Amino acid sequence: MENNTPLILVTNDDGISSRGLRLLISLMKKLGEVVVVAPDSPQSGMGHAITVGNTLRLNKSDIFEGIEAYQCSGTPADCVKLAKHWALKDRKPDLVVSGINHGSNTSISVIYSGTMSAALEGAIEDIPSIGFSVCDYSHEAEMGHVHDFVIKIAEQVLKYGLPRGIALNVNFPPKRNEPIKGIKICRQTRAKWQEEFDRRFDPTGRQYFWLTGNFVNMDKGEDNDEYAIANNYASVVPTQFDLTAYHAIPIINKDWDI
Amino acid sequence: MENNTPLILVTNDDGISSRGLRLLISLMKKLGEVVVVAPDSPQSGMGHAITVGNTLRLNKSDIFEGIEAYQCSGTPADCVKLAKHWALKDRKPDLVVSGINHGSNTSISVIYSGTMSAALEGAIEDIPSIGFSVCDYSHEAEMGHVHDFVIKIAEQVLKYGLPRGIALNVNFPPKRNEPIKGIKICRQTRAKWQEEFDRRFDPTGRQYFWLTGNFVNMDKGEDNDEYAIANNYASVVPTQFDLTAYHAIPIINKDWDI
Repeated sequence: MENNTPLILVTNDDGISSRGLRLLISLMKKLGEVVVVAPDSPQSGMGHAITVGNTLRLNKSDIFEGIEAYQCSGTPADCVKLAKHWALKDRKPDLVVSGINHGSNTSISVIYSGTMSAALEGAIEDIPSIGFSVCDYSHEAEMGHVHDFVIKIAEQVLKYGLPRGIALNVNFPPKRNEPIKGIKICRQTRAKWQEEFDRRFDPTGRQYFWLTGNFVNMDKGEDNDEYAIANNYASVVPTQFDLTAYHAIPIINKDWDI
Repeated sequence: MENNTPLILVTNDDGISSRGLRLLISLMKKLGEVVVVAPDSPQSGMGHAITVGNTLRLNKSDIFEGIEAYQCSGTPADCVKLAKHWALKDRKPDLVVSGINHGSNTSISVIYSGTMSAALEGAIEDIPSIGFSVCDYSHEAEMGHVHDFVIKIAEQVLKYGLPRGIALNVNFPPKRNEPIKGIKICRQTRAKWQEEFDRRFDPTGRQYFWLTGNFVNMDKGEDNDEYAIANNYASVVPTQFDLTAYHAIPIINKDWDI
């Protein structure tokens, strides 16, 4: 490898044995030197969880031929932290990519997403970072239609960087009869999960619950990620970890009697 | 109780037996009818994790005399979801409060915070919501100095509501020689955790890691939450779950060759 070959850290939330990770590695190998640090078990829905008050395991894996890879007992955010501080020693990656997730991370799902927490953790470390998801929850999700777009988006980020404090939340439509039409830079859709809980009883008669839910889209706009996906575009939402609602500061200062 | 008595859902991330939760319940009882749904074990650092692909337990608890309370096997976000859809049946709370957390949730810690994920989950459900934390990690953290401020802030939110899509991230300074000076409405400090990992070996000789870290404040401003806490003010950051970096959309549209 030449010295100007980009160093690319690859991780995910579906775990080191997932098909989406394997695909992402094979695509990133075309763009640079790949190091993998991925969870040793599925971590979907882990949000920005980190492991505190407990120990972490990090062990080398030979699962990907010719690729330096590690499996970690923690969350996606733990993987990025351990990659930086242990697996990569003092080498700072030029790019962090997370995915390819089996399932949508559009809209409100971004805050529950382990895929995106890894990308945001990269952004916190001032590394251009991208989370990739295909809006198809099946383990056998078709991903052949996204290859060129993953490469294209990663190339753009390697070339132009990203504004400070930002990671990209990239979602692809499921495989349909026509090819993906293009890339739309979007905002996060205003929507929520309308949860229900399926109550059951275990063999000893004690109750337990399964989370189920329906996605409710309250957003009539055409500049959001759900609209892009519905219209067969790849959606790219620049996503930040500064959660301050700046517009609310003057409102609260005016309202409150303090 | 009269019909116009506010219904207040109380939760936390330190677990149902924590002292901060007990204090928050006793303070909220002065303002309305309290229902508690809290994790059955500590959930610090869980970020916005939810339980998917696994079952949840929710059981009544008689730990708080005269208070309807439930303990849940899941995360703080799970607690709010299960409260809404099961424990409270069709009653919508007027306020969700989470805490009082033993330890700071200022600055970047907001994204790792289970305390704040519960509050943001309330905001997603269009319920005015507040996360309270005291910047003292000790289990025996002194909290007597924050009572009046917790009541005051909850009263303001019950009276004026909050802009849609926003929860408050409230932090209090640790007990110092002088009383807290007042309340500052702030933005999230630009700072990060500089992690290190302490590597150890288990009795069988295999390596494991403990996360450790130092807080690095890169922010010179005086309008942020760390500055408020350092100067002995309570900090209130309006916090949102729309993570879109709107300012980055035109930048990416201009840069990229797509």
